[in-house]
Amino acid sequence: MSKDFAERAKEIDLNSRELFQAAPGPMGAYRDLMTKVSADGVLDGKTKELMALAISVAIRCEGCITYHARASSKKGASREEVAETITVAVEMGGGPAAVYGAEALAAFDQFDGA
Amino acid sequence: MSKDFAERAKEIDLNSRELFQAAPGPMGAYRDLMTKVSADGVLDGKTKELMALAISVAIRCEGCITYHARASSKKGASREEVAETITVAVEMGGGPAAVYGAEALAAFDQFDGA
Amino acid sequence: MSKDFAERAKEIDLNSRELFQAAPGPMGAYRDLMTKVSADGVLDGKTKELMALAISVAIRCEGCITYHARASSKKGASREEVAETITVAVEMGGGPAAVYGAEALAAFDQFDGA
Amino acid sequence: MSKDFAERAKEIDLNSRELFQAAPGPMGAYRDLMTKVSADGVLDGKTKELMALAISVAIRCEGCITYHARASSKKGASREEVAETITVAVEMGGGPAAVYGAEALAAFDQFDGA
Amino acid sequence: MSKDFAERAKEIDLNSRELFQAAPGPMGAYRDLMTKVSADGVLDGKTKELMALAISVAIRCEGCITYHARASSKKGASREEVAETITVAVEMGGGPAAVYGAEALAAFDQFDGA
Amino acid sequence: MSKDFAERAKEIDLNSRELFQAAPGPMGAYRDLMTKVSADGVLDGKTKELMALAISVAIRCEGCITYHARASSKKGASREEVAETITVAVEMGGGPAAVYGAEALAAFDQFDGA
Repeated sequence: MSKDFAERAKEIDLNSRELFQAAPGPMGAYRDLMTKVSADGVLDGKTKELMALAISVAIRCEGCITYHARASSKKGASREEVAETITVAVEMGGGPAAVYGAEALAAFDQFDGA
Repeated sequence: MSKDFAERAKEIDLNSRELFQAAPGPMGAYRDLMTKVSADGVLDGKTKELMALAISVAIRCEGCITYHARASSKKGASREEVAETITVAVEMGGGPAAVYGAEALAAFDQFDGA
Repeated sequence: MSKDFAERAKEIDLNSRELFQAAPGPMGAYRDLMTKVSADGVLDGKTKELMALAISVAIRCEGCITYHARASSKKGASREEVAETITVAVEMGGGPAAVYGAEALAAFDQFDGA
Repeated sequence: MSKDFAERAKEIDLNSRELFQAAPGPMGAYRDLMTKVSADGVLDGKTKELMALAISVAIRCEGCITYHARASSKKGASREEVAETITVAVEMGGGPAAVYGAEALAAFDQFDGA
Repeated sequence: MSKDFAERAKEIDLNSRELFQAAPGPMGAYRDLMTKVSADGVLDGKTKELMALAISVAIRCEGCITYHARASSKKGASREEVAETITVAVEMGGGPAAVYGAEALAAFDQFDGA
Repeated sequence: MSKDFAERAKEIDLNSRELFQAAPGPMGAYRDLMTKVSADGVLDGKTKELMALAISVAIRCEGCITYHARASSKKGASREEVAETITVAVEMGGGPAAVYGAEALAAFDQFDGA
């Protein structure tokens, strides 16, 4: 049986809130960085979200995969776009990226109601 | 209590199948790469499988450890060979490799019926 | 609900014992390395423990986070020191370090009885 | 004075040719993977090239940065698109990604004749 | 003959300036994060600088090593403190950290006029 | 023109000597670990050296590649064995491993007098 990614996302949100409260100065600056990066620019927000997902898979960051799979769904990415994004990570990360990429697709499917 | 690695392997297999179906072109090429690398050559398949396990431990890829611990067992690696393989990863990865190496040995023991 | 880090630590300890028994020579040398590094020197043991925690977060080593969060608590680190340590990891690791740093703080809180 | 990235690219090409000749089976399968990933799909080739650059920066792969900065220029990416791509890597990789991202921009500028 | 780290630092500074100008919003937020993290807190600035150096060595970030070796010297870290910091990275990173740690000590020696 | 790996190896040796002198306790324990891992066991020393090379390529550690390419040559590894070892790293590391693997083969060729 597959992991419950919504449950995992809730745990990440909860733990993050604690960290932001414990170190509001630096973490506030980090949030500002996130906000500025994810805004539409010459690249739209969805494309940048998919880039963040590609990096998450390539570096095998399980928590980041959960976070950015959810965000990709929210920004309207399609399953086909997510799958192609994952293949870039596989090109750049080999077998480990295939394992975590498969998890990313499963997470996206859960968040996207597929 | 230790993790159920057979259960974890099933989840990896299931998610992988979805990814291969969603991106058959690139993932087929990746499968071809895997097949060619794992074949006997001047190095036999078991030795290359142990190398893949060593890398899995050194890069702390939990899913890969499950996958390659199972494959090492299937290719007839002994517990002693797996343990020595893990020590190379510890030399090259320090404490984190010790933590994931210990998990690799536990996974091998489960798959090998030890 | 958050993870049970004490349970996770027990699993790490158990698996590590098996690895140390399976490869006593190299793993004994590694234990010797750990002992020498963690001793008080020109930097005290607590500071070095926090450095190990910072690295654990920056490299996203979930098992190491459990291990060094517990050790930081045992060496008397305060919650404020742990939080500042995590911010260094976030500076050096971005979003993934924020996710794993939040987990490190949660682990420390459990071990420290917060 | 900045590095000569064209010279570095030539060295990578030369060494790669040797590796492809030494292991034509697996490396041919890897080339096939690259070809399939970089083709236009639901995401166009330029976007996927920028994703590969983002990953290169996030994982601090100096040779990959050279390779994918050149490819991004060839696929018609603009300096603004490259800069935004790098900021995603900084969000996901912190200071190390800022250092390697700055190198990626310098490489792109050289290849793009800026 | 050893590398000229002052020259390398100048190149990093130059490339970074370009990146900050090309993406002032996100990079300004990142600079704000750096400033807040490096300030004295419950941990003093020197200790946090050494933590950043430890992470740089553990993740094998050559540019970061140059940057944080220089900053450690500026914040008054002693050679003994730097050496102990490196041993924590070796505990957490094995042989690769020994190679990059040796480079970090050489960089510190150059910046510190040893 | 390709890098001079013998020169690079000399620089690594020189810097390492300084680090071993600056922190003889921990670094002596690390040397002990290396010695015990590289000894013949159920896996012979050459095989373990090739495993260390595979890890070096997979984690993109340029200094380690130099070090372990030289050691692989000293232990009598053939060019074919090195090439197959690199393909395992490519399976486990994708494009970045192809770039660093190509460098590993070039380094081996220099040390082996090819």
